[in-house]
Amino acid sequence: MSSFEEALKDTARLTEAALNKLIPLGDGPEAQVIDAMRYSVMAGGKRLRPFLVISCADLFNVSRTCSERAAAAIEMVHTYSLIHDDLPAMDDDDLRRGRPTCHIEFDEATAILAGDALLTLAFEVLGEDTTHPSASVRCELSVELAKAIGAHGMVGGQMLDLVAADHDLDMPEVTRLQRLKTGALISVSCQVGAILGKVGENQRHMLNAYAHDLGLAFQITDDLLDIEGSEEELGKATNKDEAAGKATFVSLLGQERARKQAQILSEQAIKHLEVFQEKGNLLRELAEFVVNRRK
Amino acid sequence: MSSFEEALKDTARLTEAALNKLIPLGDGPEAQVIDAMRYSVMAGGKRLRPFLVISCADLFNVSRTCSERAAAAIEMVHTYSLIHDDLPAMDDDDLRRGRPTCHIEFDEATAILAGDALLTLAFEVLGEDTTHPSASVRCELSVELAKAIGAHGMVGGQMLDLVAADHDLDMPEVTRLQRLKTGALISVSCQVGAILGKVGENQRHMLNAYAHDLGLAFQITDDLLDIEGSEEELGKATNKDEAAGKATFVSLLGQERARKQAQILSEQAIKHLEVFQEKGNLLRELAEFVVNRRK
Repeated sequence: MSSFEEALKDTARLTEAALNKLIPLGDGPEAQVIDAMRYSVMAGGKRLRPFLVISCADLFNVSRTCSERAAAAIEMVHTYSLIHDDLPAMDDDDLRRGRPTCHIEFDEATAILAGDALLTLAFEVLGEDTTHPSASVRCELSVELAKAIGAHGMVGGQMLDLVAADHDLDMPEVTRLQRLKTGALISVSCQVGAILGKVGENQRHMLNAYAHDLGLAFQITDDLLDIEGSEEELGKATNKDEAAGKATFVSLLGQERARKQAQILSEQAIKHLEVFQEKGNLLRELAEFVVNRRK
Repeated sequence: MSSFEEALKDTARLTEAALNKLIPLGDGPEAQVIDAMRYSVMAGGKRLRPFLVISCADLFNVSRTCSERAAAAIEMVHTYSLIHDDLPAMDDDDLRRGRPTCHIEFDEATAILAGDALLTLAFEVLGEDTTHPSASVRCELSVELAKAIGAHGMVGGQMLDLVAADHDLDMPEVTRLQRLKTGALISVSCQVGAILGKVGENQRHMLNAYAHDLGLAFQITDDLLDIEGSEEELGKATNKDEAAGKATFVSLLGQERARKQAQILSEQAIKHLEVFQEKGNLLRELAEFVVNRRK
């Protein structure tokens, strides 16, 4: 395993430890919703967004106690979005990370509530003073996260995706959809690191530009894997977009050009990191990893 | 109309003006989720929780700019909970406030997303500095709200309700269920007023005790109206709990004892307001209104 992959694994472990602590086992009959939250949030995955939070915060020497909590909150939001997206009324997926999705393992009502509770808990964690000594930093975390994932961010992207299923999208439209649906949470993950570090406009701007390109490179690679990967490798259904007749980066560009585009975006992302010198190395390696991964 | 009812209407108007401003019409294809948010949040209703926020904040001379925004945030959370509770996988209701429920007017996916976006927007609004000049006050608002509505609060209550459908509950169990499902948001509405007013433990404790009794009195009356009211008057389906064989305060106590119990709780609630002298009059009248209402 490369030293980058080890770093990714380390961050995943730290995030999972934080999640495990922040969502203790419940008791009483209502504990079913907590079981469902834990089932989905502890299901593994690359923990890419927590890695972004922690690595960006590390650029500014933020205490790990702070960044691990914030990373866990972001992963709760990511998990909530997956649980709700997988519902029968939405993307109707039975498999996620190689296991039955939340509404299959439990039931639809429990899955809806588990998503709601994870979203809510993320804001609870961000607001608590263990996350950062400065209350105005904590408020900024909440507000920026909420903007990124609300009707003008991630939820808007999911809505766009559902509406779009009815008509063909062109490149600018697919780009905009993905910017909202997956890009906004990736961008805010980097911003969370910067906010925790109380850094100035220039460095925030650079991280934003990095996250923008990284997010698109990530999504194009996802679209490629959806065509090229196997269900076994990916732990989720493949060829779904093609079967649904949805426009993706791959359907619009073709595999070869899509792969090339992801490569260009990855290189572009890396260029934005110059200001951070060698401290930015992990984020550079991440930009390479994102386009070269097999799942 | 009594002066109390006029005060209730005034607060409802102020809350609706705030909501209208905080959820501006969207554009682009993803605007459907904003249409759904507005459809549900602007559907009227008593605006009981915003009234509690504003009236409690008024006790401590909080600026109305602050309390109206916080009240709007609480109403967004209430509306999100109704939208999700009405879904087919949950209580499966077609009618709410005399109109088709969100998933009937739009579709299930849009309703899930509209609920998600309202919950998210509530935290955005609470975190923004227009809501209160002190960031630590704003963090406290977010954290207390999140605790009240998460897996150990409102969502836990909804889970309990779904699980309970399978077996008979006794009085302590029904009381606990309602404390979580409806009581927690009512209590935190009062707490939000107190937090905005930066008041001490004693006054917070009194408001908490008031909200506790008020919440139960409200729920018992709801159970009575479910039996005695008409669908037309209430604007929602009636006799649902009885038809589903669910234990309620009325099924456990009978109508007469339930009515008596609501009355006692209302009087008890009023007693907790003594410390506020005549400033507490609106809250006193609310406690009477809650048990005497016809819808």
